Amino acid sequence: MFFLPMEIIKKKRNGFELSPEEIDYFIQSYTRSELPDYQMSALLMAIYFRGMNTSETLALTKSMLNSGIVVDLSQISEFKVDKHSTGGVGDKTSLILGPIVAAAGIPVPMISGRGLGHTGGTLDKLESIPGFNTQLSLEDFKKNLLKSKICFIGQTKDICPADKKIYALRDVTATVESLPLICASIMSKKIAEGIDGLVLDVKYGSGAFMKSSEQAEELALKLMDIAKGYGKKVVTLITNMNQPLGRFAGNSLEVEECVGILKNEPLSDAIQSRFTNETRELSLWLSAHMIHLSGKTKSADEAYALAEKILVSGQAYEKFLELCKIHGGNLNLLPKPKHKLDVTSTQKGFIQKMNTETIGVAGLILKAGRAQVTDIIEPTSGFEFHKKDGDTVEIGEKIFTIFGADPTLFEEARNKLLSSLSISLQKTSTQPLIKKVLC
Amino acid sequence: MFFLPMEIIKKKRNGFELSPEEIDYFIQSYTRSELPDYQMSALLMAIYFRGMNTSETLALTKSMLNSGIVVDLSQISEFKVDKHSTGGVGDKTSLILGPIVAAAGIPVPMISGRGLGHTGGTLDKLESIPGFNTQLSLEDFKKNLLKSKICFIGQTKDICPADKKIYALRDVTATVESLPLICASIMSKKIAEGIDGLVLDVKYGSGAFMKSSEQAEELALKLMDIAKGYGKKVVTLITNMNQPLGRFAGNSLEVEECVGILKNEPLSDAIQSRFTNETRELSLWLSAHMIHLSGKTKSADEAYALAEKILVSGQAYEKFLELCKIHGGNLNLLPKPKHKLDVTSTQKGFIQKMNTETIGVAGLILKAGRAQVTDIIEPTSGFEFHKKDGDTVEIGEKIFTIFGADPTLFEEARNKLLSSLSISLQKTSTQPLIKKVLC
Repeated sequence: MFFLPMEIIKKKRNGFELSPEEIDYFIQSYTRSELPDYQMSALLMAIYFRGMNTSETLALTKSMLNSGIVVDLSQISEFKVDKHSTGGVGDKTSLILGPIVAAAGIPVPMISGRGLGHTGGTLDKLESIPGFNTQLSLEDFKKNLLKSKICFIGQTKDICPADKKIYALRDVTATVESLPLICASIMSKKIAEGIDGLVLDVKYGSGAFMKSSEQAEELALKLMDIAKGYGKKVVTLITNMNQPLGRFAGNSLEVEECVGILKNEPLSDAIQSRFTNETRELSLWLSAHMIHLSGKTKSADEAYALAEKILVSGQAYEKFLELCKIHGGNLNLLPKPKHKLDVTSTQKGFIQKMNTETIGVAGLILKAGRAQVTDIIEPTSGFEFHKKDGDTVEIGEKIFTIFGADPTLFEEARNKLLSSLSISLQKTSTQPLIKKVLC
Repeated sequence: MFFLPMEIIKKKRNGFELSPEEIDYFIQSYTRSELPDYQMSALLMAIYFRGMNTSETLALTKSMLNSGIVVDLSQISEFKVDKHSTGGVGDKTSLILGPIVAAAGIPVPMISGRGLGHTGGTLDKLESIPGFNTQLSLEDFKKNLLKSKICFIGQTKDICPADKKIYALRDVTATVESLPLICASIMSKKIAEGIDGLVLDVKYGSGAFMKSSEQAEELALKLMDIAKGYGKKVVTLITNMNQPLGRFAGNSLEVEECVGILKNEPLSDAIQSRFTNETRELSLWLSAHMIHLSGKTKSADEAYALAEKILVSGQAYEKFLELCKIHGGNLNLLPKPKHKLDVTSTQKGFIQKMNTETIGVAGLILKAGRAQVTDIIEPTSGFEFHKKDGDTVEIGEKIFTIFGADPTLFEEARNKLLSSLSISLQKTSTQPLIKKVLC
């Protein structure tokens, strides 16, 4: 079959459906550098404006997947399940749900990403544990999955090279925010993991990629369409990211929060307890849906009870310690921040809104995350939250505590944090953490 | 000022107006190869979808113009006027109006294009005259304008290099069909000529870039806005390209038609006379508006009378011979086609429609035009038209005559020509050649 790249761009530009062959020609030629960047970027922008229907998005996912290998986990006979989150601030659930689900005997092959922009990455959190190595070979990945039911690695060059090349181009051509492109990018990588089931945590709100719950649901339905098209079991939780998740945001701080939950440590402070409980609840529900997808329980509620039992019994913590050992991490050496600064309120009233993306950007100021892929992270930087949506606040009362290694950055971060707040005289209604479950 | 190319692309993508500084940064950086093709193509596609308002289009034109030189015609004190046509099949008016207007004492600095796709180019027509050299230096161009009031050259590398580079990119990224991009491309080159006035021939119909007269008018108004923004006098004729213009299409054939008109040669055949008269009429009206713009007459009608007087008196033909001499062309050696084939009707009825783009494509088959910039033209190839819209036709009656050097191409061209026709049993209304004059 003979294709003219310009005619394919024009077809999409004019709003017509591309055939699977046209999509595959474009993706494979581009990955092999037989097609120039400028034609790919023109097509990406045309897709941004015209969208893609389900069969086009499926074909795009397939082409991206076929640009590399699918991890062969056929040696592992059990149902294999993973979770994917669309990202937010303080989003640390993988560190809890991974051990819970693995402790339930269900293999969790996690190929995770690094943080970029205001959202954090699971690998960065784990790597704040001294010695924790996520650069394992695919062979070691499989071996660990067989033995311990859990292993975390980063994307390798063999998995979806098309996605890697296209994502880098989208990043510099303002074509990131396109549903079909997002869907194909996420799903091609997840399907390449060799999983049988997937739980999606699609976040909405000021700290999420999708600002409204309706947009989040639209994305979720598209992602689920693709997963189902590949015969994968899938369930989605639409969750609130209009405020950060849990008590801490920042790499070693989040590990500390998770370890506390895994160790069932009681917290005397009511606020600390309430915020930690958010992380615990969401992690338990995500674990429950992962367990239920595997067919181990009759209902998600039953799976929740099992997940909580595993957590309370300490088996999840044992699994987390085993995970650290696999990866060479020494939890006892987890670094503590050297400096801190309380950020107090200059106003009295109720917290009406927290612009969570702005809080994430304050984290970038502290080097808790990366503004660019080449940035180096300070693992102990981050924030503790003392107030969230709907809470009362007095003048001079603590809202945040800033942590980190370099106190010269604190003033700028403090100003950024304060700018994230809307304080009103009337209490406004708050939103539930889990808005909806789609399956 | 510091600009991020990605942010400029995003701004346009999101439908916001770009500042003149942002546009200029993008254009100049791209022309100097400091900005990659893939960011320019993403911006071009975003402009395709979002458009540009008048001030953005003006800024874009200015940036393209400033990427190169403006021809300095300050030595020539008279009002200088040019014509630009958006292109069609059999569009040969420059060869007649140039000599008429120059003979009226008004300098006509013509920097013309070559044909690409189904539309012809003035330089190609002139170069069918043996020896006719359009590759003159800008110094010779000015010298000839001073002495003879007329000279034709092609675009040089010093004039609008940004347009040259961007046009090549648009061609392969499906971003040609964008009004602001078309406007800036046309007008930057015309303003670079150093003219004072411009007559636009904006064509609509099946053989034109704009398919409807409404679209043509929209383009015309945008082009005129830019011309006026540069303080140029401008007038537009909206003309019919739902059928080819005049008696012939094809380079040497069109020169022959024009020479006949310039020599006031009578034609005994009523059809030949009618079709030749289309070319004569449109050329006279375009000449009239050029003359009137210069301020030489009180009205366009008075200018028409003057133009016709110049034509009938033989002064225009004298000027054409002078033009040939300037460029080294020998009209006596104009080549004649070696072969011909009549194309007769297989149906009886009325010509309801001629798909003029299809006729242009039939010309490409004969190598009368270029499918690609590197194609070599056969100067004697082309068609004579024996029927046009609304004419009756009998089975076996001649509709076209194919001319050319290579008769092996005739069969394919014949089939293409026949496929361009819609023949109906009812006579349909025909459209005037000049639909509207805008000023």
